[in-house]
Amino acid sequence: MKKYLVLYLSIISFVGCGENTKTENPVGTVTEMSTDPLPSWNEGVTRDAIIAYVKDVTTEGSENFIPMSERIATFDNDGTLWSEKPAYFQLFFAMDRIKALAPEHPEWKTTQPYQSVLENDMATLMTYGEHGLIEIVMATHAGNSVEEFEKIVKDWLATAKHPRFNRSYTDLVFQPMLELLDYLRDNGFKTYIVSGGGIEFMRPWVEQVYGIPKDQVIGSSIKTEFDIVDGKPELKRLPALDFIDDKAGKPVGINKFIGRKPVFASGNSDGDLQMLQWTDSNAYASFQLYLHHTDADREWAYDRESSIGRLDKGLDEANEKGWTVINMKEDWKVVYPLELNN
Amino acid sequence: MKKYLVLYLSIISFVGCGENTKTENPVGTVTEMSTDPLPSWNEGVTRDAIIAYVKDVTTEGSENFIPMSERIATFDNDGTLWSEKPAYFQLFFAMDRIKALAPEHPEWKTTQPYQSVLENDMATLMTYGEHGLIEIVMATHAGNSVEEFEKIVKDWLATAKHPRFNRSYTDLVFQPMLELLDYLRDNGFKTYIVSGGGIEFMRPWVEQVYGIPKDQVIGSSIKTEFDIVDGKPELKRLPALDFIDDKAGKPVGINKFIGRKPVFASGNSDGDLQMLQWTDSNAYASFQLYLHHTDADREWAYDRESSIGRLDKGLDEANEKGWTVINMKEDWKVVYPLELNN
Repeated sequence: MKKYLVLYLSIISFVGCGENTKTENPVGTVTEMSTDPLPSWNEGVTRDAIIAYVKDVTTEGSENFIPMSERIATFDNDGTLWSEKPAYFQLFFAMDRIKALAPEHPEWKTTQPYQSVLENDMATLMTYGEHGLIEIVMATHAGNSVEEFEKIVKDWLATAKHPRFNRSYTDLVFQPMLELLDYLRDNGFKTYIVSGGGIEFMRPWVEQVYGIPKDQVIGSSIKTEFDIVDGKPELKRLPALDFIDDKAGKPVGINKFIGRKPVFASGNSDGDLQMLQWTDSNAYASFQLYLHHTDADREWAYDRESSIGRLDKGLDEANEKGWTVINMKEDWKVVYPLELNN
Repeated sequence: MKKYLVLYLSIISFVGCGENTKTENPVGTVTEMSTDPLPSWNEGVTRDAIIAYVKDVTTEGSENFIPMSERIATFDNDGTLWSEKPAYFQLFFAMDRIKALAPEHPEWKTTQPYQSVLENDMATLMTYGEHGLIEIVMATHAGNSVEEFEKIVKDWLATAKHPRFNRSYTDLVFQPMLELLDYLRDNGFKTYIVSGGGIEFMRPWVEQVYGIPKDQVIGSSIKTEFDIVDGKPELKRLPALDFIDDKAGKPVGINKFIGRKPVFASGNSDGDLQMLQWTDSNAYASFQLYLHHTDADREWAYDRESSIGRLDKGLDEANEKGWTVINMKEDWKVVYPLELNN
């Protein structure tokens, strides 16, 4: 219970979001910029380490050669493939859902924690703690069928805007990571998402945005139940947690869904540490990649003290073990795809 | 709880297994017998229905064309891809494990239900009912790491012999179903196993035997826990049920692991009925395939009265809805791959 709520507990107020980075150009698809597989990455040790690893393990005859079926690469989502500030995007979804559902629940106007959501009163919302947030997640993520929920997520993504950038949330994916996903796939790696976020919140869009199929997405989930309603089979989403895919839950989820230990894992917070440890224990040569958010201008800068996406123990262990750490400010030429069209 | 144990509860005595079908020739791999995609299937309505469906939904411009990403095909395992008599093969595994572990547990000689297993006394074993069988499954499937368990399963399969045929259990897969899996994959379908059997009991061998990767296997599971032991990350298998992938659990498992509704589903018992109903509700043209065991000479004949693999409600619903039912005796030229080398 507790771990899941780490995802939701620490809503930082919108103060300090920095100035808006307005870009009038539409987001473009990336066309071939060069034969460089990682064109949005600056030259340097990080980029070199990634390329050296991929070459090493995919060159036949190499001592570290990894057969194709074992080339499993797992990526965290929030803060690793897209931004997670000022709060997890899924929390904005839940709050918008409360507002959308409010007309059917007039009692919410005077019932907490709903009232605080409706009044955008984050400070009061937070006083209801885990219990209040669980209530909001269940009220917004359960009570419908899996098909209905997929449509709700898609509809929300089509219109919702990020408070700082005033762009669609799916515009705020990291261009260098899109290139890394492609580069790994081009080299025979199978790419998976392993996220603390909701599995059914991610599946409706990750295929199009990241090129990762729905069945390569592992996330937290609520229970579902099969029933036949008026002769029609339905999977109903129930207000009960099923699986928490965070921290020590990540290796558990990886084993459950994939059945193989990854050789490549990437995350950005202490919630990813166990996934990186698990990967590091692979008998094949493995690669651990942390994204360190160091760029307050283009994105955000945070690590050890952040309540969302805290990177503290992970940073120490990365240093100890020689894992690769991306310095966003130094290593990335661009952060978001929209910058490519400037 | 109850559903899972249906898998184990009904151990039929070995009486009535029929004569041994001894084949001295080694099992051969299937080389191209013809350009017929289903050479081990007799001409007839079943074979015609399968081929007509696949052609219909994969022909561009067809009214029923299904895009590649939606071509999800799910197969039950026990009784659908390999035999399940005189008892689920996983139960033989559990009983052999009790015997292998017995030296470390001298108390089992006089402690039930272990004693009955050690004495091959199925009648007494059955008197301990669900509780006794749960105890045996937990004693044999938990208490080790995921890597250790994988090795145990592989080692067992390398030596264990089926009581009737005196062949490896993996020799007792159905040749016509192997061809069907290939045929579907050749036509862009992604094939999955969705079985009430243990997910980690299947994963060690299904890739080699069925050509189905580990991450396309859905099954029942026990809980695992991540821990660091002497600095080494481990996933420990715990004596606690995690998920029961049977009956109404099959659509739940499909949604959880695949995130899409299948268009093709195949099973052989009432435990598969909800999977077939779920598939039947697909907006795309779908195909439901039941295997009816009608061949006591080459395999087994059973349906409505069988405690293992009962096909009763499913047979009625198949008839009502016009689903395709394989008559094993009539529709299959050969049952097991070993017959090809006769």
